[in-house]
Amino acid sequence: MTNIKKISHIAILVEDIEESLKFWRDAFGLELDHLEEVPSQGAAVAFLPLGESEVELVQPLSEDSGLAKYLAKRGEGMHHLCFEVEDIEAKLEDLKKQGVRLINEEASTLEDGRQIAFIHPKGTGGVLVELVEGL
Amino acid sequence: MTNIKKISHIAILVEDIEESLKFWRDAFGLELDHLEEVPSQGAAVAFLPLGESEVELVQPLSEDSGLAKYLAKRGEGMHHLCFEVEDIEAKLEDLKKQGVRLINEEASTLEDGRQIAFIHPKGTGGVLVELVEGL
Repeated sequence: MTNIKKISHIAILVEDIEESLKFWRDAFGLELDHLEEVPSQGAAVAFLPLGESEVELVQPLSEDSGLAKYLAKRGEGMHHLCFEVEDIEAKLEDLKKQGVRLINEEASTLEDGRQIAFIHPKGTGGVLVELVEGL
Repeated sequence: MTNIKKISHIAILVEDIEESLKFWRDAFGLELDHLEEVPSQGAAVAFLPLGESEVELVQPLSEDSGLAKYLAKRGEGMHHLCFEVEDIEAKLEDLKKQGVRLINEEASTLEDGRQIAFIHPKGTGGVLVELVEGL
């Protein structure tokens, strides 16, 4: 039943991407692929690929977003863990049948066409899990 | 200068591994490779490989350990992010030279012979980072 392919990315919530890059790129040595604004997520994101996965630095773009509130409450740190799946609709159906609490009952479509959905941390034991179906 | 090979694992701190496996293995569909006690870390760990990385569920074994205190304070959730590096001594030297705050100035050796060290979250912008050099 598993159709999970790999860890897509780890998202790290940060106050200021440029400041965070001083560690992740300059000191630690990850490569910055690119930096972009993702309006659907209300954030600017730096993409640092590593092997088959990515580290993403996520900076909220407005002070009243969910991300900004989370940042104010919990501080900088790991925010969510994203898994690439083969068939996101099938996976969501499967999770629903098993009574797992979802944030998104249906997948939504990113600017680049990929489909994503989030599982509620109450359904996973404390971890905000994102699912993504690649193109 | 970068000698980072891949994400080795994401460690998720949990109250009860068996309970957590109900989501991660039974509902979500990751495969459990094995479960073992890691005395040097004061924890029981479930290893769930996925692609080139692993998800690890970490349950503190005693109530007075650092892990148990973290769990009591922050609750269940992502605990640390581990990167596999080619040469851990060289990486630690490099980080020290750049003024990055480390938890372990020297690597220590796990039961299985691999070498590990932790970077302080104050040095990374909120993320507890582990380095591991494979066998």
